[in-house]
Amino acid sequence: MTVNEALPTRTDWTLRGGTPAAPSTGRLRPLGLREVTLRPGFWQRRQETNRAASLAHIEHWLERAGWLPNFDAAVEGRLPGARRGREFSDSEIYKLLEAMAWEYGRAGDPELGARYRAIVRRVAAAQEPDGYLNTHFGRPGQQPRYSDLEWGHELYCFGHLIQAGVAAARAYGPDDDLARVAIRAADHVCDTFGPDGIPSVCGHPVIEPALAELYRVTGNRRYLDQARLFVERRGHQVLDDIEFGRAYFQDDVPVREAGVLRGHAVRANYLATGAVDVAVETGDTDLLEAVARQWSTAVARRTYITGGVGSRHQDEAYGDDFVLPADRAYSETCASVGSVMLSWRLLLAAGDPRYADLIERTLFNVIATSPADDGARFFYTNTLHQRVPGTEPPADAIVPRAASSLRAPWFAVSCCPTNLARTFAGLGAYLATTDEDGVQIHQYAAASLETTLPGGRAVALEIDTDYPADGRIAVRVVRAPETPWTLSLRVPQWADGATVEDGGGKRGVPAGTVQIRRRFAPGEVVVLDLPVRPRVTVPNPRIDAVRGCVAVERGPEVLCAESVDLPDGLGVDALRLDLSAPPVERDGEVVATFRRLPAENAGWPYGVSTPSTEDEVLEVPLRPYHRWARRGPSTMRVWLPVNGD
Amino acid sequence: MTVNEALPTRTDWTLRGGTPAAPSTGRLRPLGLREVTLRPGFWQRRQETNRAASLAHIEHWLERAGWLPNFDAAVEGRLPGARRGREFSDSEIYKLLEAMAWEYGRAGDPELGARYRAIVRRVAAAQEPDGYLNTHFGRPGQQPRYSDLEWGHELYCFGHLIQAGVAAARAYGPDDDLARVAIRAADHVCDTFGPDGIPSVCGHPVIEPALAELYRVTGNRRYLDQARLFVERRGHQVLDDIEFGRAYFQDDVPVREAGVLRGHAVRANYLATGAVDVAVETGDTDLLEAVARQWSTAVARRTYITGGVGSRHQDEAYGDDFVLPADRAYSETCASVGSVMLSWRLLLAAGDPRYADLIERTLFNVIATSPADDGARFFYTNTLHQRVPGTEPPADAIVPRAASSLRAPWFAVSCCPTNLARTFAGLGAYLATTDEDGVQIHQYAAASLETTLPGGRAVALEIDTDYPADGRIAVRVVRAPETPWTLSLRVPQWADGATVEDGGGKRGVPAGTVQIRRRFAPGEVVVLDLPVRPRVTVPNPRIDAVRGCVAVERGPEVLCAESVDLPDGLGVDALRLDLSAPPVERDGEVVATFRRLPAENAGWPYGVSTPSTEDEVLEVPLRPYHRWARRGPSTMRVWLPVNGD
Repeated sequence: MTVNEALPTRTDWTLRGGTPAAPSTGRLRPLGLREVTLRPGFWQRRQETNRAASLAHIEHWLERAGWLPNFDAAVEGRLPGARRGREFSDSEIYKLLEAMAWEYGRAGDPELGARYRAIVRRVAAAQEPDGYLNTHFGRPGQQPRYSDLEWGHELYCFGHLIQAGVAAARAYGPDDDLARVAIRAADHVCDTFGPDGIPSVCGHPVIEPALAELYRVTGNRRYLDQARLFVERRGHQVLDDIEFGRAYFQDDVPVREAGVLRGHAVRANYLATGAVDVAVETGDTDLLEAVARQWSTAVARRTYITGGVGSRHQDEAYGDDFVLPADRAYSETCASVGSVMLSWRLLLAAGDPRYADLIERTLFNVIATSPADDGARFFYTNTLHQRVPGTEPPADAIVPRAASSLRAPWFAVSCCPTNLARTFAGLGAYLATTDEDGVQIHQYAAASLETTLPGGRAVALEIDTDYPADGRIAVRVVRAPETPWTLSLRVPQWADGATVEDGGGKRGVPAGTVQIRRRFAPGEVVVLDLPVRPRVTVPNPRIDAVRGCVAVERGPEVLCAESVDLPDGLGVDALRLDLSAPPVERDGEVVATFRRLPAENAGWPYGVSTPSTEDEVLEVPLRPYHRWARRGPSTMRVWLPVNGD
Repeated sequence: MTVNEALPTRTDWTLRGGTPAAPSTGRLRPLGLREVTLRPGFWQRRQETNRAASLAHIEHWLERAGWLPNFDAAVEGRLPGARRGREFSDSEIYKLLEAMAWEYGRAGDPELGARYRAIVRRVAAAQEPDGYLNTHFGRPGQQPRYSDLEWGHELYCFGHLIQAGVAAARAYGPDDDLARVAIRAADHVCDTFGPDGIPSVCGHPVIEPALAELYRVTGNRRYLDQARLFVERRGHQVLDDIEFGRAYFQDDVPVREAGVLRGHAVRANYLATGAVDVAVETGDTDLLEAVARQWSTAVARRTYITGGVGSRHQDEAYGDDFVLPADRAYSETCASVGSVMLSWRLLLAAGDPRYADLIERTLFNVIATSPADDGARFFYTNTLHQRVPGTEPPADAIVPRAASSLRAPWFAVSCCPTNLARTFAGLGAYLATTDEDGVQIHQYAAASLETTLPGGRAVALEIDTDYPADGRIAVRVVRAPETPWTLSLRVPQWADGATVEDGGGKRGVPAGTVQIRRRFAPGEVVVLDLPVRPRVTVPNPRIDAVRGCVAVERGPEVLCAESVDLPDGLGVDALRLDLSAPPVERDGEVVATFRRLPAENAGWPYGVSTPSTEDEVLEVPLRPYHRWARRGPSTMRVWLPVNGD
């Protein structure tokens, strides 16, 4: 028996689009999901697979694993006996709902809308009269509410519920049933953890950005105040110490005093995301600068070449500075989702193209890497070095989260599939922004853009590109104001030799932002050409794990060598890159020249000399890292030891 | 109320010495603890610290942490409410008892004997009528017996109890109270897990060598059969799968089919130890060869230069081949205790000096590294690279096991201190062996040796050396048979340029074993001279983590650079070894020449070029790795990047 049974069910399903992360202040303003439409190309394929396959796959597994039926069991009084899944499994339902809300808001598929509403009804029915909602806590025979803030994930689950509610409110309007469930939950959280309530925080952040976002859609300042309270409380040792130390959940140092992102990488990135939300909504420039500083240091010292973060398996955590082993790189998919959320908010706040650079790198090399082409198997972790081919996981079993030698359908902790789903559903929103004076294009994909600049100045653009296969990006003006405005295009930091062609002339442009301010007539085309030829990248010498190695990149894509491209029986670890013949592009493939180590020696592996490579030369194609492990089991390397080093 | 209250308490405390691991077959025969006496020097100092400080320290903490009082609570019916510690905490009491038994057996300190007997009484009182003994399972309100073989550690605890009982039987004789408790426990295990019993094994091996050893002291074949049954059962997926996979507890592949040591390193080494025990007692050469093969492969591909094993924090496990990161090297102290146990048994079985080489390396670079000089703080893990100085752990608190930037007094999982204690107490036994024809000296330390060769031929030797500070080892014959016999001396694999001086002549000897067969007169001296000058060691090129680095070794000691020896504020990670001036020994210190990296760059750490080092030259002493972190917090490196590589 729950209060929401009495809620009038909404019948007006008019679409309103919606904008993930819409701060009320900042340098740049985000576009809504109906202002940018991906057209066929790299990202549209992935968004379409997400819509057509992943959402149903996730829904299937949430039923099958029992995590969604937990809500029915709650309503029917069958918990705790019937409960299945980990303590945070409710959150996966909320992330699916968020993905569905963005997807429906974007494309309005009525069948999807009906599935969404069916799940919302089951969730809403389980909410308790005071707004509390969690299938793992609080009933006779379960742990009491808030009895384990370190590991219980109750506020984490509420955070994802509220994020789903925000998506629902943005897609459907604030009287959507899910938005109302989320608002009740948020009120309960504020009642319970407010200034006079429990003076603590959740072991897993995410309630912070969720409440700040709910403030944005409702205008209710109470949620922002609560978000700020959670951000400020953390770091004062309000949680119990644990084996991994309080840095694991960022309770070691207050957010505004910390120098770098640290601890559990998903937690760290979600918290920083919430801190930016609070900072920009409250005008707290100290807090904003603190997070920007942490971001910069983490990028310089704690980020893989793929953009992935969190090197440690044990606690899924950021390592110490420059500890970035390719071997067993954890690089959790969810940490990259959090990284994109964080960088996006910093980009909106400050406009610095470095943030969009990292988003691009992360999208192409982690977010695109995780899902299988069928949208029904995923990498939870994203190693940069696979030494043992591994075996295909069973198609119909739940596997451990870090068993990632091949993509798996579902995990005991299955946060990544739902996190990807919400990211792909809202992906268009990351492409561009506006400001007072124009449009900024940050990410390159075939797309249509239609928006209105301040003063009612309508702009419509068509972006035509085969990026990243090709570096040519043509921006065609479809509609434009009569008065001058500025078209800004990001020139990635890697794009040495980029050119822009604007009405005849072609000129070189440095990395950063190229701004074209003038009147544009419909039909005019601006072409940005990014040099996507293969290039050799060397690591900072303080990164011990990849000393003596280089990576080969092509445009925004990190490449890798895979054993399925090698002669029978040869593993990638025998390869030594011969830089006397640098990697070249040939017939649409990047080909690198290697020599090989002699067969392994037995015996003590430390001595007075190393063996030299064999004379035979091997030409091996390098593939985009995001394509790896799609042709069966293989060994793989991103970082390639250089011969003779 | 327990049956052992009725046991007549033993009153005859005559000392019998004792020999850890005394197989009934094999190439070499071990010596007893009263046949070898360490004299002042490197190892005697450590054995003495163990006796005088560590045993009392451990006893203090076992009381304080409540793990020993658990036995009293069991007797008084206060469990489970009063129980403290992890599910395997009973085992620490047993390892302390084992250490005390060896120590008493060796030196006969009556005060120690009294403390030992007091603890034995408390343990014995808690044993149940059927021989079962565990403070964590089986009482109302506790989990049922054997309801969690994967993680419950019940047979693991019995294993350590039986090992303690074996030490007691060897030191005092088989009618010692602890030996009798162990025999009751072993009978219970055989009753419960025999051919018609529970067809499974324990998630943590150690019962296997324990039962085989108990067979050796009792002659009761039942224990050997049970040990063999446990060894043979494992690897057939008799345990449930877990997140880390069944390789974690070696239940993935049968022992005799496995190609390499794998999974949790302590588990792997204990199991292999038990498999050798079973193999040599049953004449199972296939099994023996299987373990020898696993040892060889693990040594060639999965062993740190220190001899340490187990690179992974998450599951304390062996990594894949050649995954040996210096960063966060786990190298658990207990895994090295297990490695020494395993290598020792293989040495006894086969006589190959490679086994003694690894024992030497492990003793000097892991076993000697773990304890503080006061014998009251320990490293649980033994990293080869410390990037952040860390902070001194509180002197009176229990710390997480892997928080090892400095030595700590006690751990939440505190297996290492007690494991070291039993190792140091029995250390003399690892120095030498006998066979039909003579004496083999495997490890070099100042010591006296007195034994009897077959045929009643008494031999007494005095070994005089300041090893490893000095490489000169003088073996003086004190007593010898009239007939010829063979004195064998191990020449370590690293000792390029070793010489032996035997009656005037000095000759070069290659790595391996030098054998001198002749009549020896009392007073004669044989001198082995091992070149302990510093040498530069390069790693196998397949070990990615240390590519472009070398280590500096001196004799059996691995050296390291520590930031406490650097100019203020400079960390070891800025150092680049300048091999144009190789490390030299000067005034008793090894000094190496370095250049330094420029101050860190900010920004994206992957680019087109690397910075070159600064012109200034730094001379820095390198210290034995086992001495690191004894002068306060510091950063440290074993593997030194070579300038220009």
